[in-house]
Amino acid sequence: MNKISGIAASAGIAIARAFILVHPDYSVQKEQVEDTGAELKKLDEALEQSRTEVEAIKARTLQELGEKKAEIFESHLLILSDPEFINPVKDLISKDSINASYALNEIATQFVGMFENMKSAYLQERAADMRDVTKRILKHLLGITQASAADINEEVIVIAEDLTPSDTAQLNRKYVKGFTTNIGGRTSHSAIMARSLEIPAVVGTKDVLSQVANGDLVIVDGLTGDVFINPSEEMVAQYRTKQQEYDVQIAEWKKLRDEPTLTQDKTQVELAANIGTPADVEGVLENGGEAVGLYRTEFLYMGRDKLPSEDVQYNAYKTVLEKMDGKPVVVRTLDIGGDKELPYLEMPKEMNPFLGFRAIRLCLDRQDIFRVQLRALLRASAHGNLRIMFPMIATLGEFRQAKEVLLEEKAKLTAEGTVVSDNIQLGIMVEIPSTAVLADQFAKEVDFFSIGTNDLIQYTMAADRMNERVSYLYQPYNPSILRLVNMVIQAAHHEGKWVGMCGEMAGDQTAIPLLLGLGLDEFSMSASSILPARSLISKLTMSDMKTLAKESLTKSTAEEVVELVKATLDK
Amino acid sequence: MNKISGIAASAGIAIARAFILVHPDYSVQKEQVEDTGAELKKLDEALEQSRTEVEAIKARTLQELGEKKAEIFESHLLILSDPEFINPVKDLISKDSINASYALNEIATQFVGMFENMKSAYLQERAADMRDVTKRILKHLLGITQASAADINEEVIVIAEDLTPSDTAQLNRKYVKGFTTNIGGRTSHSAIMARSLEIPAVVGTKDVLSQVANGDLVIVDGLTGDVFINPSEEMVAQYRTKQQEYDVQIAEWKKLRDEPTLTQDKTQVELAANIGTPADVEGVLENGGEAVGLYRTEFLYMGRDKLPSEDVQYNAYKTVLEKMDGKPVVVRTLDIGGDKELPYLEMPKEMNPFLGFRAIRLCLDRQDIFRVQLRALLRASAHGNLRIMFPMIATLGEFRQAKEVLLEEKAKLTAEGTVVSDNIQLGIMVEIPSTAVLADQFAKEVDFFSIGTNDLIQYTMAADRMNERVSYLYQPYNPSILRLVNMVIQAAHHEGKWVGMCGEMAGDQTAIPLLLGLGLDEFSMSASSILPARSLISKLTMSDMKTLAKESLTKSTAEEVVELVKATLDK
Repeated sequence: MNKISGIAASAGIAIARAFILVHPDYSVQKEQVEDTGAELKKLDEALEQSRTEVEAIKARTLQELGEKKAEIFESHLLILSDPEFINPVKDLISKDSINASYALNEIATQFVGMFENMKSAYLQERAADMRDVTKRILKHLLGITQASAADINEEVIVIAEDLTPSDTAQLNRKYVKGFTTNIGGRTSHSAIMARSLEIPAVVGTKDVLSQVANGDLVIVDGLTGDVFINPSEEMVAQYRTKQQEYDVQIAEWKKLRDEPTLTQDKTQVELAANIGTPADVEGVLENGGEAVGLYRTEFLYMGRDKLPSEDVQYNAYKTVLEKMDGKPVVVRTLDIGGDKELPYLEMPKEMNPFLGFRAIRLCLDRQDIFRVQLRALLRASAHGNLRIMFPMIATLGEFRQAKEVLLEEKAKLTAEGTVVSDNIQLGIMVEIPSTAVLADQFAKEVDFFSIGTNDLIQYTMAADRMNERVSYLYQPYNPSILRLVNMVIQAAHHEGKWVGMCGEMAGDQTAIPLLLGLGLDEFSMSASSILPARSLISKLTMSDMKTLAKESLTKSTAEEVVELVKATLDK
Repeated sequence: MNKISGIAASAGIAIARAFILVHPDYSVQKEQVEDTGAELKKLDEALEQSRTEVEAIKARTLQELGEKKAEIFESHLLILSDPEFINPVKDLISKDSINASYALNEIATQFVGMFENMKSAYLQERAADMRDVTKRILKHLLGITQASAADINEEVIVIAEDLTPSDTAQLNRKYVKGFTTNIGGRTSHSAIMARSLEIPAVVGTKDVLSQVANGDLVIVDGLTGDVFINPSEEMVAQYRTKQQEYDVQIAEWKKLRDEPTLTQDKTQVELAANIGTPADVEGVLENGGEAVGLYRTEFLYMGRDKLPSEDVQYNAYKTVLEKMDGKPVVVRTLDIGGDKELPYLEMPKEMNPFLGFRAIRLCLDRQDIFRVQLRALLRASAHGNLRIMFPMIATLGEFRQAKEVLLEEKAKLTAEGTVVSDNIQLGIMVEIPSTAVLADQFAKEVDFFSIGTNDLIQYTMAADRMNERVSYLYQPYNPSILRLVNMVIQAAHHEGKWVGMCGEMAGDQTAIPLLLGLGLDEFSMSASSILPARSLISKLTMSDMKTLAKESLTKSTAEEVVELVKATLDK
């Protein structure tokens, strides 16, 4: 038996045979052929097989992951039928009497090169699509039988260097019981995907790929981050029990779906969900979310070639508000810039994009963009319980200016006779240290705070959490972070305002006792974390958590805080 | 008359004729020549003229700016005499029967291209040298008479887009009375250079270059940031008076050189200087510095092709300690990484270098580098009053680990029989928000703090101060910054430790009253800011400053704080 440790990225236990996902060799050789007709026929067959495959993947993605995620495969289908792409390949086969695979690769390379040379990020994505599609056609032309993610048809654990969005979209949830990768962290794409698919996953193992052979029996423990290769029968039995216990727990959690979130001593808090698209609301309700604590509106602006119109936005916001049926929906205004680029907005390269021109900084400068979003939000406010929140607020001046713009648009709409709710709460993200430190001043002017711990921790520790060499400094339990959270909550409560949290930390089982004790009012997290959080909170006593939280503020390191939490919960 | 406003970058008033520093047209044409001998002779003459010029610049730089700054011109001389560069040019002239300027440009372009293609930053600097030298030779070959900075021989105000290090090194302090540029900020290279040369300067005017003609009369007010073009006689008279008043003030300041730094009510603080090289100590003593509050050791590691040896470092530290003759010298251990790269250290590109792998993070990982520096420091400690400070400390764990490494090296040296001082104070930079927030815990373990406001402000406001689009968020007077400074000072004093500050803010005339009131013990700044600071402090009353500081902590914006300071000082 062999044991490897990585980062527990998605909860649960999986036991199955290993399926090693590697990328096959697609290199082609130029060959002179006599029967060009046969090559043309091969090409047509490969195109047809590819179309059938993509149709199937698209249908599955639509069903399992929603419309947005399925769109990419629509583009693939368009390429597979595009005469501007196919005809030159056929011409080349006929003209030069060469084999189909070589001709295909030649033409595709030209297109990819052309797309890549254009400065548009949109066309660069098209280049990626073209590459994906070409590989798929080549697979059929070359008769490559090496399995891809889409071919999995028995229960397996996928082992890979990393999983790309395209790989994950193709995973069949029915058969893929778990996965483990060499690279990645808790917030990498593959980890987030695993949690939303509810597949146990361990990422960042560094070398699982080199230690496992196809067909090896593997246990993935997404609760601890352990991976066992060819475990003993005894061990398998032990983990089957652990798996069953987990399943029982999951079933228990499901029972809490329609219950309020109460501590043992009946203090109530609100458990909300973070969403990116209207389609995500379903998951929120299924998991017993009491609100949307963070609606990231960036997705509305992505994957298109121009800004979304006021009506497109209005419809999205209205849909979410209506589906949530009177429950609060906190919409964050556009947080673009920095690492999140939009192809149709010319944004200069920055030396340190995380410390750059983004979110509210960009919106106050580009009010043409900002006002359209605010109008759409104001119009949608008539259809539910809307709350608006500005991201990356660093100074009171910024908040005042943003609020003024909002009030101007509201006045205009009212003058035009449009119905706008008079009960829209207006808040800010607290994700910049200055704002946490000055929370008492902000609390006089905002309706609520939502603490964005992902960024707050990055800035407070001066460490880019995506940078592996300093990711050890991304410390949610560092007492400095807890003190800032405490400052914000104290300041808000002093002015009678509420405080939420919408970073990863809000759904973290070690953080929840601390946050509860500090007095956090709303916890917003991945939908899949809500029931475990409700279950945990139902076992805690508020008075004990207050003592715990108070003591945590006197500790000097994150390690001491974690020990303290463990000691308190074990009591 | 025309008035333009920019950023007051270096104090003082200058009145003189404009000298527009532009970069001439160095483009060359290929010409067939019959008399290649004449071209070869032209080339030799141009090389000789260039050598004479560079020798002169080097001598002046050596005298005015010190050895380090003069080194670049030594490289230029080497290129001007390098047969591997010159011979190919001559061969090309003879072989192709072409003109010298074209041949020179051809060969230089090849070298530059070759250097640039190498991955080494060291060779890329060589490419820049090659370009500089080629321009100089071309100037003589093409008979370009357009004046360069080195040609100035009467009193002028230099007007330029920006000043490069090479431009500034060539400025003749005797004749250049002031300068003003289109771009740059208070911390840009040209601004820092102006302060160290004590030349009045206004930078970042956006368009001064387009508004001034050669020979226009110009007033540069480095106190307010105003630039006047062709002012009225009345105005010139008024500014001459202002200039005289300033000169009187300067003279008064000079009288304070050997005085202690005392407020009206006799509270004493320490005024220290920031230095980069042993040569800078002279300026510290001339300006009445009572200590070195920050010795940046990075320069020891730059401009060379391998790490500096223990002895090279030992000699530098010993020189500074001896020159300071028992006055405290705070040495910051290596703060490299991020934007400060070393050609001989392979450092991967980072997405956000300011939030990356640098300073103590790198030193704890690369202990081979760190231990050499610590040994050199420990050995030098026998020669003066050494204090050691670690940069970019974010957690107590990092400080404890760094201290342990230091103690290990000390034990080794002692065992070897080397004398090491037993009174070395050990402190940290407070430049990361987490450390400021947790200062009470740190204060139990360190001997002192030095607040690095340049970075602390960047991280606290989440804004890269080098990024013009967000530089408005670089707010030293933001109440959140003052609160963090207050937390650090309170925490330190509670444990009987002292607190210094070594960012730009410590020498800022608006910040000094606030910092004094907050209880800062040591102010470390550019040497040229020390006497103005001592003069200002001598006029302030500690009890008033305490009231001011306390009130500033209750303000909600930077603007309100600035108003409060003004109102208090005007009383």
